[in-house]
Amino acid sequence: MSADLSPHQHRAERLRELLQRFRVENHLVDATGGQRHELESSLLHRQQAAELERRLHGIHIADLAELMESLPTDDRALVWQYLPDARRGEVLLELSDAVRDNLIGSTGQDELLSALSALDTDDLACLGDSLPAGILQAALDSRASDEQRWVQASLSYEENRVGHWMNSDMVMVRHHEALDTVQRHLQARGELPAHTDKLPVVDQRGSLCGVLFLQDILLNPPDARVSEVMKTTVVSFKPEDNVDDAARAFERYDLVSAPVINVRGKLVGRLTVDAVMDYVREAAETDALNIAGVVESEDLFAGIWASARNRWLWLSINLVSAFFISRIVGAFEGTIAQLVALASLMPIVASVAGNTGNQTTALVIRSLAMDQINAGNMRHLFRKEISISVLNGIVWGAVVALFAYIFYRNVELSGVLMLAMVLTFTVAALFGVSAPLLLNRMGRDPAMGSSVILTGFTDALGFLIFLSLASFLLV
Amino acid sequence: MSADLSPHQHRAERLRELLQRFRVENHLVDATGGQRHELESSLLHRQQAAELERRLHGIHIADLAELMESLPTDDRALVWQYLPDARRGEVLLELSDAVRDNLIGSTGQDELLSALSALDTDDLACLGDSLPAGILQAALDSRASDEQRWVQASLSYEENRVGHWMNSDMVMVRHHEALDTVQRHLQARGELPAHTDKLPVVDQRGSLCGVLFLQDILLNPPDARVSEVMKTTVVSFKPEDNVDDAARAFERYDLVSAPVINVRGKLVGRLTVDAVMDYVREAAETDALNIAGVVESEDLFAGIWASARNRWLWLSINLVSAFFISRIVGAFEGTIAQLVALASLMPIVASVAGNTGNQTTALVIRSLAMDQINAGNMRHLFRKEISISVLNGIVWGAVVALFAYIFYRNVELSGVLMLAMVLTFTVAALFGVSAPLLLNRMGRDPAMGSSVILTGFTDALGFLIFLSLASFLLV
Repeated sequence: MSADLSPHQHRAERLRELLQRFRVENHLVDATGGQRHELESSLLHRQQAAELERRLHGIHIADLAELMESLPTDDRALVWQYLPDARRGEVLLELSDAVRDNLIGSTGQDELLSALSALDTDDLACLGDSLPAGILQAALDSRASDEQRWVQASLSYEENRVGHWMNSDMVMVRHHEALDTVQRHLQARGELPAHTDKLPVVDQRGSLCGVLFLQDILLNPPDARVSEVMKTTVVSFKPEDNVDDAARAFERYDLVSAPVINVRGKLVGRLTVDAVMDYVREAAETDALNIAGVVESEDLFAGIWASARNRWLWLSINLVSAFFISRIVGAFEGTIAQLVALASLMPIVASVAGNTGNQTTALVIRSLAMDQINAGNMRHLFRKEISISVLNGIVWGAVVALFAYIFYRNVELSGVLMLAMVLTFTVAALFGVSAPLLLNRMGRDPAMGSSVILTGFTDALGFLIFLSLASFLLV
Repeated sequence: MSADLSPHQHRAERLRELLQRFRVENHLVDATGGQRHELESSLLHRQQAAELERRLHGIHIADLAELMESLPTDDRALVWQYLPDARRGEVLLELSDAVRDNLIGSTGQDELLSALSALDTDDLACLGDSLPAGILQAALDSRASDEQRWVQASLSYEENRVGHWMNSDMVMVRHHEALDTVQRHLQARGELPAHTDKLPVVDQRGSLCGVLFLQDILLNPPDARVSEVMKTTVVSFKPEDNVDDAARAFERYDLVSAPVINVRGKLVGRLTVDAVMDYVREAAETDALNIAGVVESEDLFAGIWASARNRWLWLSINLVSAFFISRIVGAFEGTIAQLVALASLMPIVASVAGNTGNQTTALVIRSLAMDQINAGNMRHLFRKEISISVLNGIVWGAVVALFAYIFYRNVELSGVLMLAMVLTFTVAALFGVSAPLLLNRMGRDPAMGSSVILTGFTDALGFLIFLSLASFLLV
């Protein structure tokens, strides 16, 4: 990020430079050796500690978390050591899952509990899933019983439910109050929770009946009733709703906050745009990694073994499909022995089919994510993708056939190659459309490992079609 | 999206059902044929038109746009035909680029101009890039000269600059005013622009000196000065700043809006979270498609030719690499003819190497996007990825070697296969880390076509390493 972007980031950049300098200085002290070593080292150390503490003080939590993510494990531990308890908990909230788990694992139980005690209930609930069960229970024991209930309720929702992401920090108003009464209440309460653009309005029975925008308190006469100026068309969610749907509603209706209500219309919490954005970013990152066959995000500085194992699931799926492909080709070894040019040409069919299948799948996954595919247009989609493939198969098949002719001067071979291209393109497109649709209908994430599955399938297909055509028509 | 999510969406769903019913009814009328045909058809048509107009009225613009995206071209044209001018411009704003271009292309100049005349200046600037130059000029001619200047200034910024996404719709206050004066001004002005959580504060010279949160007007005594209650640590942007950086700052500091200032500190506009979310979503979608080798998003109902051509750039790059690979294998045809098992085993090496390279690249692209890679940890990253590959190469190489031994009972062949796996894994990881880093340093988007480039390279590499080892050691 460019240095002139934000006053916060200047400070983070300077801290990074400071840590770098410490590393160089400590290295120099180490190198001088001998008797002077310990004295100088402890002096330097005390100076450095004081400076580090001072600098850490002025840094925005989000910048601190980002800085820590890009620091090697030693420097990260150093920064963590000099953070006061009040900030440790907040930093944990901002870190990525991988780095957070690492840090929680390497921090002692008592230290962790003091860090957690500084967090409010909503934040403790957010961290809940990352904490060892014993620690979470100990952290909860010191809280009031309604706070304990809130954390447990929040943790009972899965990570893709609104209930997991909502917070309890909100101010509600009654529909019969006058605006000046509301304003007096707000003043008595002091600062409003972050992302309060509007207040939920409840009727006598405590059911949500509208929302009152802050600006409507400012813009209307003080004696107006809440019920007169509130908006009654409210986008609200239930704790069981899917966060993906909620995120789409936030984008669509440009929401900053939205009330969460239970089945009886009672207000139970509030969902805010920052939680939604966090969820969207996490989901987008996970998707990008999953497509490529990485199970979850990695701490850049995690150990080799942990990182290697993170990639094994999809590597092994890939290997099984590769073995399968190898047996397909193996079945045609007799044909290849008679016409060895087949071995050189077969990767072309497989590779181009893989590319076209991946293009189709990417477009279908995107349309699924945007809710653009329904029963009414599914047939159209299939027809279109297959037409494109036949067209592309003919165009690029002709190019490939010409290429093969230049090298092998064999018209029959070129003809078989072109036919194989058209067929493979078509089946790749058919599979590229139906695989994500099928996975989606089965309630699975269509992006998960899609490129591994698809490439395996189109490779197998390309080899099978090309080699079997060749063995029937050429040899 | 589930039906109980939002009051808006109910209406959109009912409209979709209505259009479906119309299609069925019109089909029935078509089928009855003969004399009754025209009379019934026109009656039905008039009833349908009235009902359609009525239903369209109650639908939220964002839902309307989504509905239109998933409608076949005929139904889309029907909905468009019955939209009043005032809503047509807003729908254009919400549509995806592909569908928008389609609709603009099929709408007459005069119709388009009336739709545009209903838009405010910021929205016209947003549409600017999609409009034919003549139409944009005609739409501008009817505007005040300061509005014309604003649109032209906004269009002069590239799509990845803050200047392109900022809006001019804001209310600023002076630092010496009292809060009650501010409130009177706001009341005189009426409704505030969307996403106004705070007002920019300027000093005598018109320079930004702080921000005043709406809630601080509500919570503080009416006679307090703006300068006493405003916040002075402000995250602001310049029009030249990169929107990616701005988006990260919005996420990081949980911003709803932020002032945009020029080099002299003068306020020139405002960036809001809805524009940032739109940009982030567009960028994420484009990335996902680019990785798979699709140039841009497609209208699901666009013509076959346009869609086929959209995939040609990367298909042709893929084809060139496939030709290259074919010639690598071609150079070893003599070896393969002597030991045809090589042809069956070589796809395994290429396929698994492609997978491991894609995993590495996906992780590096993600770390680049999150600004986690810097000069200090680059070496660590290389060392780590190469260690993982050597480890994975040995583990999975042994599995593959065992598999090959079961089928071919040839210890030397299995040994060569394992050696090839370790080498290919290592080079694939090296390339998987350095390719995105290099592209990034060259100022190019590292995600663009990455899976096509990487798979081509690792395929070539896998075949080359395996076949050349075999020709030296086995034949």
